[in-house]
Amino acid sequence: MKKSRVSNAVIRRLPRYYRHLTELQATGVARISSNALGKAMGFTASQIRQDLSCFGEFGQRGYGYNVETLRGEIADILGMNEGHTAVIFGVGNLGRALIGNFNFGKNGVKLLAAFDVDEKIIGTELAGVPIRHPSEARAFLESNHVDVGVITVPKINAKDVARLLVSCGVKGIWNFANTDLDIGDNGNTVVENVHFADSLLALSYMISEE
Amino acid sequence: MKKSRVSNAVIRRLPRYYRHLTELQATGVARISSNALGKAMGFTASQIRQDLSCFGEFGQRGYGYNVETLRGEIADILGMNEGHTAVIFGVGNLGRALIGNFNFGKNGVKLLAAFDVDEKIIGTELAGVPIRHPSEARAFLESNHVDVGVITVPKINAKDVARLLVSCGVKGIWNFANTDLDIGDNGNTVVENVHFADSLLALSYMISEE
Repeated sequence: MKKSRVSNAVIRRLPRYYRHLTELQATGVARISSNALGKAMGFTASQIRQDLSCFGEFGQRGYGYNVETLRGEIADILGMNEGHTAVIFGVGNLGRALIGNFNFGKNGVKLLAAFDVDEKIIGTELAGVPIRHPSEARAFLESNHVDVGVITVPKINAKDVARLLVSCGVKGIWNFANTDLDIGDNGNTVVENVHFADSLLALSYMISEE
Repeated sequence: MKKSRVSNAVIRRLPRYYRHLTELQATGVARISSNALGKAMGFTASQIRQDLSCFGEFGQRGYGYNVETLRGEIADILGMNEGHTAVIFGVGNLGRALIGNFNFGKNGVKLLAAFDVDEKIIGTELAGVPIRHPSEARAFLESNHVDVGVITVPKINAKDVARLLVSCGVKGIWNFANTDLDIGDNGNTVVENVHFADSLLALSYMISEE
């Protein structure tokens, strides 16, 4: 199926399939039926078969899925083997958490550099990632292939960073600045906004009185 | 509609309605049609009418929605006015980012205390939140009403924290430990797992070659 025809809901489920298959593989499970996979993930077997059918034929009737194979196929579909690269803007608490504790490499993304205005950390490295001044960012983006810009700067600076990333042709923005980045018609940059509040409010709903 | 009958997809959209209505209100918009609201959010008007119909009658034919009223109703539905309280376990980079930069209060949640093993910060406050040793957590949870436990400790410690929270009757766990917490049949605690990787991989998919 053409990529653009795959629904957002299916795209959102793909990383969860990947995560569950990774866990299954780690615990030594070699194959699994769509029924069992569905049960573990809270989906129906038919939903799983339907989701995966967007991308090809994976399972085998009466056998189920080979865990390692399916995990590899989904990694491919997710673009994890394309050698994606990223830079991050903002080395505050959240930036440090991502650089130090989030495993970009495990997700097929290489973090090349970080940018921050704090003179005390410029020129140093954090978890092997060099930290530079934002004034060097444009030159860096123009002389390195960068697929993703991660934004962990304060909300007020997020739009400027986004504009820079778009103007340098970066394909994706992973935005933690707690503001929806409307980048308009400037190129083909895809924005993935992370909203902590949406998650907390869903939890708030679930624990509230009837 | 009974709360348990509302689908997860609708629950996930409620915070987004709240966020968009907040932005509309901030820019002085007093009323909006389901068409215009849908367009702004990438939904159809009928989806919006259907979502909201789970909770009552909000719009008026030919008038649309009163932005302030609908925002208030959704805040109520989300439990934002129930005086929810929270504690956080783990004052590393991510914990600090949440305590210092995420506005719990804006989401109707009061952050009462933080727990961390780092002796250098125990007894201090961060953004007005007192930091204590985890050995004091059980007594704190038993003598204070706490609705939500936020987990930002390393993966390896997450299960112990979750067990403590469940055993103290905390209703919700907001889990950033990058591991799905299977808390089994221990009470009615709801777990909201935040997976940064799911978000990055969805972005990775969207920027990958056809």
